[in-house]
Amino acid sequence: MNRKQLFEQIQNKSSFLCVGLDTDLSKIPGHLLKEKDPVFEFNKQIIDATADFAVSYKPNIAFYEALGPKGWESLQKTLEYIPKEIFTIADAKRGDIGNTSSLYAKAFFETMNFDSITVAPYMGVDSVKPFLEFEGKWVILLALTSNEGSKDFQLFSSKEGKPLFQEVLEKSNLWGSPENMMYVVGATRGEKIAEVRKIVPNHFFLVPGVGAQGGSLEEVAKFGMNKDCGLLVNSSRGIIYAGNDRNFAQAAKGEARKLKEEMKVLLERYL
Amino acid sequence: MNRKQLFEQIQNKSSFLCVGLDTDLSKIPGHLLKEKDPVFEFNKQIIDATADFAVSYKPNIAFYEALGPKGWESLQKTLEYIPKEIFTIADAKRGDIGNTSSLYAKAFFETMNFDSITVAPYMGVDSVKPFLEFEGKWVILLALTSNEGSKDFQLFSSKEGKPLFQEVLEKSNLWGSPENMMYVVGATRGEKIAEVRKIVPNHFFLVPGVGAQGGSLEEVAKFGMNKDCGLLVNSSRGIIYAGNDRNFAQAAKGEARKLKEEMKVLLERYL
Repeated sequence: MNRKQLFEQIQNKSSFLCVGLDTDLSKIPGHLLKEKDPVFEFNKQIIDATADFAVSYKPNIAFYEALGPKGWESLQKTLEYIPKEIFTIADAKRGDIGNTSSLYAKAFFETMNFDSITVAPYMGVDSVKPFLEFEGKWVILLALTSNEGSKDFQLFSSKEGKPLFQEVLEKSNLWGSPENMMYVVGATRGEKIAEVRKIVPNHFFLVPGVGAQGGSLEEVAKFGMNKDCGLLVNSSRGIIYAGNDRNFAQAAKGEARKLKEEMKVLLERYL
Repeated sequence: MNRKQLFEQIQNKSSFLCVGLDTDLSKIPGHLLKEKDPVFEFNKQIIDATADFAVSYKPNIAFYEALGPKGWESLQKTLEYIPKEIFTIADAKRGDIGNTSSLYAKAFFETMNFDSITVAPYMGVDSVKPFLEFEGKWVILLALTSNEGSKDFQLFSSKEGKPLFQEVLEKSNLWGSPENMMYVVGATRGEKIAEVRKIVPNHFFLVPGVGAQGGSLEEVAKFGMNKDCGLLVNSSRGIIYAGNDRNFAQAAKGEARKLKEEMKVLLERYL
């Protein structure tokens, strides 16, 4: 999927919502455990319920990997079930030397058919570039994350006072373009989003941390939106575990719709 | 496996060799492709041929992941086939927020039964600690890698002239101990290994980059060895693709034995 198609979908749906499929057997409603593939069955119902309000789905790969080969089958089926016009993100945070990153790219872009993958920058240019060689596919590079530990190294500063996350943005900006690269930018600090937006005015941001992790959607839109929206805001637990009985999909739909309505207002205000 | 058991094995075998199982369907001998599980069949014969000379096996997870669910089955079978006294490394370079890292830990330490996993430090303390909560298991944290891109961020320096990899070593040193944490330290620069050894005198290092990536075993031992050896030196392609016909396992055995003989001399000299 290209940038233009993504933006069109955002406009059509008046939403920049990404739904995180962090599907956990210990959290899904008990009646699903009798199904042959409970993870897929859960995802299927969540997708059916939320596809009108979401422009993106983001399976967190750890949740599937933890289940062994069976988990990968559930993931593959989930990916095939997602409507073609919706942007898919493998939240995998991979990154290794060149020939290994090429294989990870093959795993997520060919063996499976994800539109994008999250990548960790620590190993530098040759760990990122192999992912950029796939036409129509995207790298979503970790820049400034929303977790407590993000302070440990991402804010480590040079003698000019430049933090590492800024160095990551500036260097990686030369490896790809706003047409094939996005950044993970945590939502817990509005002023930080403004700082990142100044460095990379045109890239899309994948913003976790709204909801369970405590960020404000209003601040994200105010400080992060650009002329093509430039935002995918993720909510995982807040949507998929909104209910935990037979009506879970209905509850998820309600939460997704609520976020979409907020996003509609923000798109009208800031776009 | 604990540190004492690992050191005993190193002494018994007079070797600190780690064999990288980067098993690639496009590179294994053609006659194996007729087998039901060519990847496992290749690994099995490599393990049979090299187990006397290796103290560790390191499957590179990307190679298995690229094959989809079938690849995970080959990986699981390979892991079960490795003799119990040999240290196993999931070269996965994972790292994510706390609850997600916990799931990756579960995937590699419980669903599979690896002794250790390589982890990327970019997301900080809460992305690493969940891996340290498993008794008898190890984190092998990326510090200074051997690829070209390692310069991009790992050498990014603070105003005191401290490079990021040093900050990673110093901070992470407080999260774990030499009993449950090792570091990935590239072998392409001997003086760099000495620098790292000064900061973390007691930790084991996993050293890639000897052979195909151009590092010298002699330099690694001279600058990196400590009183418990403190080194696992990896060779992947140089061993497993030493031959590519029906005698591939014999060829691999020859290369592994050669490295082991060099290591024996170095252990006698520097330990």
